This record gives sequence, C-alpha cells and structure tokens, in this order.
Amino acid sequence: MRAPVPSQPFDYRARLTRATAAMAASGADTLLIAHLPNLRYLSGLEATAGLGLLGADGRLDLLVDPRYEAAAGACARAVGDDRIRVVATGDDRPTRAVAAQCLRQRVRHLAVESRAISWHDARQLERALSADGWHGVLDDAPSDLVEQLRRVKDPTELAILRHAGARLSHAARGVLADAVARPGRTEMEVAAEIDGRLRAVGFSRPAFDTIVASGPRSAMPHARPSARVLQADEVVVLDFGGVYGGYCVDLTRTVCLGRPTPDVNAQYHAVLAAQRAGCAAVAPGALPADVDRAARQVLEAAGLGSAFGHGTGHGLGLEVHEAPRLARLRPGDPLQPALAVGVVCTIEPGAYVAGRAGVRIEDDVVVTAAGHDRLTDVPLGWPTAH
Amino acid sequence: MRAPVPSQPFDYRARLTRATAAMAASGADTLLIAHLPNLRYLSGLEATAGLGLLGADGRLDLLVDPRYEAAAGACARAVGDDRIRVVATGDDRPTRAVAAQCLRQRVRHLAVESRAISWHDARQLERALSADGWHGVLDDAPSDLVEQLRRVKDPTELAILRHAGARLSHAARGVLADAVARPGRTEMEVAAEIDGRLRAVGFSRPAFDTIVASGPRSAMPHARPSARVLQADEVVVLDFGGVYGGYCVDLTRTVCLGRPTPDVNAQYHAVLAAQRAGCAAVAPGALPADVDRAARQVLEAAGLGSAFGHGTGHGLGLEVHEAPRLARLRPGDPLQPALAVGVVCTIEPGAYVAGRAGVRIEDDVVVTAAGHDRLTDVPLGWPTAH
Repeated sequence: MRAPVPSQPFDYRARLTRATAAMAASGADTLLIAHLPNLRYLSGLEATAGLGLLGADGRLDLLVDPRYEAAAGACARAVGDDRIRVVATGDDRPTRAVAAQCLRQRVRHLAVESRAISWHDARQLERALSADGWHGVLDDAPSDLVEQLRRVKDPTELAILRHAGARLSHAARGVLADAVARPGRTEMEVAAEIDGRLRAVGFSRPAFDTIVASGPRSAMPHARPSARVLQADEVVVLDFGGVYGGYCVDLTRTVCLGRPTPDVNAQYHAVLAAQRAGCAAVAPGALPADVDRAARQVLEAAGLGSAFGHGTGHGLGLEVHEAPRLARLRPGDPLQPALAVGVVCTIEPGAYVAGRAGVRIEDDVVVTAAGHDRLTDVPLGWPTAH
Repeated sequence: MRAPVPSQPFDYRARLTRATAAMAASGADTLLIAHLPNLRYLSGLEATAGLGLLGADGRLDLLVDPRYEAAAGACARAVGDDRIRVVATGDDRPTRAVAAQCLRQRVRHLAVESRAISWHDARQLERALSADGWHGVLDDAPSDLVEQLRRVKDPTELAILRHAGARLSHAARGVLADAVARPGRTEMEVAAEIDGRLRAVGFSRPAFDTIVASGPRSAMPHARPSARVLQADEVVVLDFGGVYGGYCVDLTRTVCLGRPTPDVNAQYHAVLAAQRAGCAAVAPGALPADVDRAARQVLEAAGLGSAFGHGTGHGLGLEVHEAPRLARLRPGDPLQPALAVGVVCTIEPGAYVAGRAGVRIEDDVVVTAAGHDRLTDVPLGWPTAH
C-alpha cells in the first residue's frame, strides 16, 4: 500500500440528518433501508446482509445477524449511540425483526426501499406486520431517497475519488505502455495482469469483472474475458476499475494491435468525438439526458446511432453504477435532477458493429463550478498514423 | 492458463426439460426467471441483466437489452432455436416486455422468482399486466425451483468442481508454505497476494472478497481486509476462493503466527473437531440440519456454542452460496431435501470470541454414494507443539 486513504472521517451524523429530513418530507416516519451501500453510507457498516430502520428522530437501528454484530457495534460506537443502535436479529428472519421494531416504536408509516427488497421479503414483511396486528401504512420509499443524497459527493468523498482516479490512470498508463494486451496472449491472461496491476497501485479490489474483449468479441459491450488469443491488427476493448477506500472508479480504452482498417479507424474517431462532446456537456445545471444527447448526436451523425446501444455514463461512488444515469429518458421515467457540483460520473460512449469491431472510450469526471474536471488522465493508445 | 476447463458441454436442453417439468408440477404454465445464475444454468447466458420466460412447451425466451443481444443470440444458436429465443427489449423496461410476451403467448399462470425480483419491479409488472388487460394468475414460483435442480451437480459440473478444488488446494498450500500471512504485512497486502495466487493457478477471479482477519479482527467472521499490520503470535483467518469455468470453490484456514495461548489452542482444536464431525455427517440421505447439528454439538460441548453464530456450510456451484444451506432450521423454514449424491458444499464451523480470537476451518466436499469426498486437501497450518 502507498499513501493511505485520505483520512478525514465521514460525517455520518450529517448524513443521517439529511436522510431523516428527506424522509420526513415524503410523509413517512420510518424508512427501511435494504440497499447495503445506502446502509454503509449512513452508518459506515460494510456487510453483505443487514437492514436499517431510520426513525423520525434521526436514529438508525442496524438490524444484523451474528456475523455482523461486532462490526455494527463498532459503527455505533464511532458515530454515537444516540444516533446508531444495534438490533441483533440472531437466527431469526430479518423481516420479523423489522415487524417487531415497528410495533415497539409505534411506527405509523413505514417506507421501504422497494428496489432493494425482494418481492418475497416484502410479502413476508407484510405478513409479519399483519400477524403482529400492526395497522400502519407500508409503501415504497420515494424513489431512491438515499441514492439522491449520495449523488453529490462531499469533500472527503471527492478527495478519495480524485486519489482513486489518479491511481487508476497510473495503472492504465502502465497497461498501455507495457502493451499488456498483445498478440499471443489470451483475454483471460490480459485481464489477470490488469487485475494484478490494480492491486499493485493500491486498489483493494477490481470494481467489477475486468473486460478484455478482442476482435469480434469487442462488439459485445459486456463480454467476459475468454480463452481467445489476441491477434495482430485487431481491436481490443479494455474496461477496468478499482475500489479505493470503498469508492469506485472506472476506465475504458480501446486499443488496436497494429493497423486498423479505415472503417474501424473511422468508427474509433467517431466514438472519440462523441466522448469529447459528452465530457464538454458536463456542467452544473445540465440534465443527465442532455449529456447523453451530446454524445449520441455525434454518433448518429456518423451513422453509428444504432451501434450505440447503452447510455453515455453513470455515477460513481460506493457503487460502480449509481445515480445519476446519463442516458436517454425512457417513457415514464421520472425527470432526473440536473447535474450539480460534486457529482462524479463516467462518460463512455461506444459503437458496436457485429462482425467488425466494438469501440468504447471512458473517463471519469467530476462536476465543478467551472464545468468539470477529469479524474482520469490516460493516453488513447490508438495508432495515430494511417 | 494451464489445463483448460473440462470441455464436455453442458446439456442445456436436458436442464430446460427438467425445469419445465418442475414448473408444470407446480401448476404454472410460465416461469419468470429473474435470478441471473438460474438464467445462466438454463441457457449459458452470462449477463448482469436479463430475464427469462420459460414456457410450458419447454422453450425459454431470453429478454435482454442491447448489451446482451449478441451473447444471447450465441446461446440460442448453441442450444437450438427450438428451445431458446432472444427477445430484444431495447431501451424499454423489461417488465413491460414481460407483460407483452405474456399477452402474446396467452400465458394463464405466471410464476415469478420472487426472491430475485425486487418489490418495485414486481409492482411494475403487475401494473403493466393489468394495463395490458391480462387476467391470468401472477404469483411467486415454488420455492427455489431452479435452485433445487442446481443443487445436484451433473458429471460435467462435478469434473469442473473437482478440478477447481484441486487448484484451490494448490494455491492454499503455497499460501501456507510461503507464509504469505506473516508479521509486518497488512491484511490488505496478504489479501492482494492471495488474489494474485488465485489468478496464477488459473481462477478467472476470486469467488468473493478474500477475508484476511488478524488478531482481534479474527473474531469478526466476515471482516474485510484492513490496513492493520499482522503481529507475531496472533491468529489470522484466511478465507478465499476462486471461480473456475464459472464454478465457485471456497476454503478457510486459520493460522497462528507463532505460539497460541492455551485458550486459543483449545478453541482451535474444538473447531477442528467440529469440522471433522461435520464432514463425517455428510452422506446421501442426511439432512442439511443434521450436518449442522453434528458440528454444532462439538462446539457446544466445548462451551463454544454461542461463539458459533453462523451455519455449518453452504452449497457451491455457479454461486458461492447456493442450496443446500447447512444450518439450524429457523421457525417456519420449509424442510430441506436430504443430501443426495452430487451435492457439493462447504463444511466450515467457526468460533468467535470477542477480545480473544476467531477460528474457522473450511473445506469443500461432494456427496458420494459412499458418503463424501473432499474437494480440497490442504494442511492445517496450525502450530502443533505447545
């Protein structure tokens, strides 16, 4: 490990206060937090299971099984037991513990993070509440209440993300300079070396399964590394990221192992122009869909609109995909809030032509008062002379 | 990469036929598959999003967004388009595409994998179906229908898992022999080296976040590797696994970096005896809860019953935690089927004493006609002389 994670502690009390205010504005008096990154954001708890009950008084109950009692207790001590309490659920179903807490605390309106709780568990909770004779209102929480708070990063988070972006750039420059993707290696070998380099520059783990997609496989935007051997003159999409201090960064470069055909070269430069247009559109007040449109129009003008089947980018933070989603609005989508200073996201248009090649270029940016800063700074790795 | 994955292809047609029969027995005429490992099991599709609709005629529709159209198409061609078809959902909500398919195919009783679909999506699906004027029955699928098929591995899967167990053992023997966990290193450094060794023996990635929990942190069963520096004479829990050909294996060893105290030594030997008792109880016809009881009784007799807060083991396969769950039955739990030849699971009792130490020992076993075979074969790495 090199320099440690920026050590300013997170202000969990302030986060709990903001979440409580947002919940109160929605009319609920208790919020069931089922999405684990939200639980971590509000309490510091890193767990693979657990629930939170946030009350109108701004207190968070952490409902955990025996595996996480000690870790939850440490969070409660760090934040203060006036704000975080541990409720040990033992071997019992967590939904039963939620029902018991709702009864005990005379909850009247329980809002549930409905995207994070399964239909099965929601029905189990309904049954447990009614078996206990509870007569309150149970409904889904206002869309992504905690996610919307997480959208704008605080200074501690931004320091970590800038640090992480610099480390990812360092690793990526090495990957390109040392030709980690080269003819004769398999996609899996290339992915393994990239993952090792991510660890070597201080990431605790890859942020997602590293993508190495070569030749015809590059046309699959989310191909898994295979045993396919890279060939001269073909295109390889390298998409990788790391987790640093709990926060995710993400980068894609498309390289050519020799000389691209004119078609592929034109495709590459269209994606590059789209990526630059997307970045240029990032500023406070811009809507996520505007950024998507800025990138998409460039590809449409190049006749590659239908080859760009995904969105232009996504937020980065405790999750590698979080709010905002920079994509076309789908029918019925709620309007997304405009970008604000402190939002961190990827800009990653791509074009995928089956039987020819796929190209994607991705950088991470933070919204600033002046527009945006790039968190990643990596050469393109594309042959320049044809 | 060394020897390739055993290359016998999976028999997706047989799997689809078995799943269709199980669905028909439940009374439904269509199953909505929302759990991605189940979708992969039935079709070969590796994706991070997608839904399957399995019809009474044994056909599976793969509903995918543009990112996975090519991969889904390849699955359909490999299995045969009389059994697998691709339905491109475009940018539309997948629940809307499900509703449209239900109408088009005159589905009368749609069973949904309710543990894998969110409450939010289930409600959206209900609304889409009723907006389309659909009048069938919508309910949750019989508990873990596809998971129960996945419980018993076929010969191809067993060959992969045995291979993976041998590779994991090889990596683990190196980790112990080379004292990868040694005083002066941080937990994160040890975890990074273990992950690199997993890749070096041919795993495509770690099966989960490697656990390195030292000293007092060993008492947290699921501690994340921290910047804590390992000290002489303390206990370190090392829990790691890998994914090989899509299948997960998992191993834990607890080491002592010097001389354990008598208390810790007694705790270690109690866990070891419990682990052996758990393994010995694995045989066709044994109930999962019986295996748990066999291990638990040993720890209870040693006064460590309350220090063993998790289950004795879990199934291994496409997921690192899958059926069966070898644990105490909770009130209201359905009876689990008995172990059968071809079930693969971990046996991993532990004892966690806050302020002292935690110990866990884990191996992977396969149920055979004669009882069981170990898939992992690794020395204990515990000091023998005191």
